[in-house]
Amino acid sequence: MAEFIYTLHWIYFIVMICGAFYLFLLSRDPKGVPKYEYVIAIFIPCWSGAAYLSIALGQGFVEQQDQVIYFARYLDWVVTTPLLLLALALTAMFFQPKKDIALISSLIGADVVMILTGLIADFSNGTILYIWYGIGVIALWIILYIIWYPLRKMAFRGSQELGKHYQRTALYLTAFWISYPTVWLLGPSALGLTQNGTEVLAFILLPIFSKVGFSILDLNGLRKLNFSS
Amino acid sequence: MAEFIYTLHWIYFIVMICGAFYLFLLSRDPKGVPKYEYVIAIFIPCWSGAAYLSIALGQGFVEQQDQVIYFARYLDWVVTTPLLLLALALTAMFFQPKKDIALISSLIGADVVMILTGLIADFSNGTILYIWYGIGVIALWIILYIIWYPLRKMAFRGSQELGKHYQRTALYLTAFWISYPTVWLLGPSALGLTQNGTEVLAFILLPIFSKVGFSILDLNGLRKLNFSS
Amino acid sequence: MAEFIYTLHWIYFIVMICGAFYLFLLSRDPKGVPKYEYVIAIFIPCWSGAAYLSIALGQGFVEQQDQVIYFARYLDWVVTTPLLLLALALTAMFFQPKKDIALISSLIGADVVMILTGLIADFSNGTILYIWYGIGVIALWIILYIIWYPLRKMAFRGSQELGKHYQRTALYLTAFWISYPTVWLLGPSALGLTQNGTEVLAFILLPIFSKVGFSILDLNGLRKLNFSS
Repeated sequence: MAEFIYTLHWIYFIVMICGAFYLFLLSRDPKGVPKYEYVIAIFIPCWSGAAYLSIALGQGFVEQQDQVIYFARYLDWVVTTPLLLLALALTAMFFQPKKDIALISSLIGADVVMILTGLIADFSNGTILYIWYGIGVIALWIILYIIWYPLRKMAFRGSQELGKHYQRTALYLTAFWISYPTVWLLGPSALGLTQNGTEVLAFILLPIFSKVGFSILDLNGLRKLNFSS
Repeated sequence: MAEFIYTLHWIYFIVMICGAFYLFLLSRDPKGVPKYEYVIAIFIPCWSGAAYLSIALGQGFVEQQDQVIYFARYLDWVVTTPLLLLALALTAMFFQPKKDIALISSLIGADVVMILTGLIADFSNGTILYIWYGIGVIALWIILYIIWYPLRKMAFRGSQELGKHYQRTALYLTAFWISYPTVWLLGPSALGLTQNGTEVLAFILLPIFSKVGFSILDLNGLRKLNFSS
Repeated sequence: MAEFIYTLHWIYFIVMICGAFYLFLLSRDPKGVPKYEYVIAIFIPCWSGAAYLSIALGQGFVEQQDQVIYFARYLDWVVTTPLLLLALALTAMFFQPKKDIALISSLIGADVVMILTGLIADFSNGTILYIWYGIGVIALWIILYIIWYPLRKMAFRGSQELGKHYQRTALYLTAFWISYPTVWLLGPSALGLTQNGTEVLAFILLPIFSKVGFSILDLNGLRKLNFSS
C-alpha cells in the first residue's frame, strides 16, 4: 500500500485526538448542557482515531483479490454512528424531560443494520454486493425519515430556537451521511470509478467533518441556546 | 448445498419482511400500547430476515468436515432472542410504571450465554460439544424459571386479565424455545438422527412462529387489554 | 500445552461457579441492597468461568509463532470489567436516587477501549505492541481518575460510612487492576521476562480476587451499611 495512505491515517488520528481534547476543554465549562452530551462527543473521535490508527499501523485492513478492505472503518462506524445519531436525537429532545426511547432505538437499530450490511457488501461481489448495499440504503432512508419527521417536530415543539438549531445540525449530518454511500459506491469497493487513493482521502475528510465538525456545531448551538433561554 | 435449502431461506426472508410490514401497520394505530413495544416487534423480523438472507446468498454458513455450520443463525439469535424476552418481560410489567431492570438483565444475560454456548457447541465435537450444550440448557432453565415464577407473579399483580394474557404468551414462547435445542440436538450439529434438510426446515418454521407469530399474539393481546381496561 | 495449565483453568472454572453460587445465596436475603447489584455480581463469575472453561477445553486460545494467545481472556474481560466498574459506580451512587449516566458511560467507554487495545496488542509485535499497550494504559488512567475523583466525592456526599466503604472497595480494585497490565507486560505477550506458566497462574489468581473477592467485599459492605443506617 502506498506510503501516503499510511500518512493520511496518521494525520486523521492526530486530528481526532486534537478534536477530542478540544471537546474535553468545552466540557470543563458545560454551560448547562448535560455532561453526557460531552461524553458522547469526546468518545466518538477517540474511538474513531483508534480505529484509523490500526489502519495506519498496517493492521486494520485485509487485501483480497486486488482489493483492499478496510474493515477497521466498520469497527469505527458501528460504534460512532449510533452515538452521532444519539447526540442528534438528544438535541431534538433537549427540552423534553423524558427522552423518547422508541425513536432512539429505531434510529440505532436501523443504523447498525446499515453499517453491518455495508461490511458484508464490502466482502461481497457482483449482484450480492448490490443486494446488501440496497438494504443499507433502505436503512439510511429510515434514519433520514426519523431525523426529518418525528425528531424535527419534537425539536420545534421544544422551542423555535431549538427547532432552528436542530434543523441546521440535521442538515449538516444528512449532507455528509449521503456522501458516505456515494463515495463507497463509486470507489473500489463497488463500481471502481474512482481510485483507491481518492476513496481513502474521502474517508479521511468526510469523518473529520461529520464527527468532530458535527459535535462542535451541535454542542456550540446547544450552549448558546441554553444561555439565551 | 441443495437448491431447495436456498429457496427455503429466500421464502423465510420474504415472510419476515411481510411480517415486519404487518407489525408496522399495527403500529400506525398503537391503541395505547407503547411505541417501543412495536419497535422491538418490527426490528426482530428485519434482523432475522437479513441473517437468513445471508444464508440464501451463500454467505452465512461454513462447511466443516462434512457438516454445514450456519453461523448466521447465531448472529440472528444473539440479537432477536434477547429482544423477544424483553418483549415478554415488558408484557409482564405492562401496568408497572417502573420496569424491573434486575429481572430483565438476568433474562438477557442468561439468554446471551445460551446462544453463545450454542455457537461454540456447533463448532465443537464429542464430549466438549455436550459440555457447552449442557451449559446452554442450564441457561434455558434459568430463563424458564424467571418467565414462570417472578414474571408471572408480576403479570397477575398487574391485573387478572394481564396475567392470563401473559400466561398464554409465555406458554407459546416456552413451547417453541424448548423445540429449538431439541431440533438442534437431534440434527447434524450433534446426534445426527435427522437429516440436514429436516433440521433446516425446522429452523425455517420454528422462527416464523416464535418471532412474527409471537409478536402478533403478544401485541394483539396487549391492544385488547388496553381497550377493555 | 502443559497439562497443569488445563488443570488450573478447570480449578478456576469450579471456583467461579462456587463463587456465583455463594453470591446467589446472599441474594436470597438482599438486606435492602437492590437486586440488580446481585445480578451483576452473580453474572460476572458465570461469564468469566465459561470463558476460562473454553481454555480448559482447548478452544479459547491460538498458538502463533511460539506464543500462546488466550483470546478467551479478552472475551471474559470485555464483559466482566465493565460490570465490575458498574458495580463500583453504583456503590458510589448508593444513596443517590438518580444515577449519573455520564460518569458510568465514561468509565465503561474507557474500559472497553482498554480491553480491546490489549487484545490488539496481544496480536501485535515490536513497536506496534507498545503503542496499543500505551493507549490501554492511558485508558486505565482515565478509569482510575474517575474512580478516585468524581466517584469518591459522590460516595462521601452520600454518607461518611459509604465514603469509607467506597474507598476500601476502590483501593482493592485499583490494586488488582494495576497488577493486570504489569503481569501482562512482564509475561510472554510482551517482554517475556516471566514464563508462560507464571503468567497463566497470575491470570488465574488475580481474577479470583478481583472478581468474586471484589463482589463479596462490595456487597457485604453495602449490606452492613444499609443495616446500620
